[in-house]
Amino acid sequence: MSSIFTRIINGEIPSYKIAEDDNYYAFLDINPNALGHTLCVPKKEVDKLLDLDEETYLGLMAFSRKIGLAIEASVPCNRVGLTVIGLEVPHVHVHLIPLNGMRDATFQHKASLTPKDFTAIAEKIKANII
Amino acid sequence: MSSIFTRIINGEIPSYKIAEDDNYYAFLDINPNALGHTLCVPKKEVDKLLDLDEETYLGLMAFSRKIGLAIEASVPCNRVGLTVIGLEVPHVHVHLIPLNGMRDATFQHKASLTPKDFTAIAEKIKANII
Repeated sequence: MSSIFTRIINGEIPSYKIAEDDNYYAFLDINPNALGHTLCVPKKEVDKLLDLDEETYLGLMAFSRKIGLAIEASVPCNRVGLTVIGLEVPHVHVHLIPLNGMRDATFQHKASLTPKDFTAIAEKIKANII
Repeated sequence: MSSIFTRIINGEIPSYKIAEDDNYYAFLDINPNALGHTLCVPKKEVDKLLDLDEETYLGLMAFSRKIGLAIEASVPCNRVGLTVIGLEVPHVHVHLIPLNGMRDATFQHKASLTPKDFTAIAEKIKANII
């Protein structure tokens, strides 16, 4: 059974897509800590970050940097945080989260966004990818 | 004024050092979420992760991977999480945290360790670096 992220990558489950290349896929977290909260995942389905081979790991980090810079250019915030936890979905994912305080980093407070909010911020982030 | 991490790197403030190379330094977090919680910092003093040039950023991530694998080999845990927040000390630092549940990832619950605990786990992690 494919992970929920593989099904998103394959288009079987809809997502607010931000970017995609041969090896990685970025989309908005549907239960975001803050506006602009994005997930970057390798297309290769591996559970744990440190189980990725070094090339895939570094490729994921380079991809996440590019998306993080676009988020930083799109969402007013103190900085964009980068977090890999992975206790819920067994498919590596990098959280990129616009942070204004620790509250945005704990995963215990969630932002309430409408489909219109998601679409608008996705378009803005996409336009800011260099 | 140098950051507290630059002063640690320079040996002006003691730390439980894990590893060091020309560009990066790893040491135990003195207020850890869990046993083995380690910080990896670039020697270059930059406040925000995404303000690092790409080479320094990817070097930091490669260094963190190496240390993370050594932590995973040293501390019984579900996995090692990787987190960059940075709202407190204005010098980039990657948190590597042995995770057994979300409680270990929120920075709201802290482990109580003795100097003996810190020394023992530092030695163990160092011995597991490949």
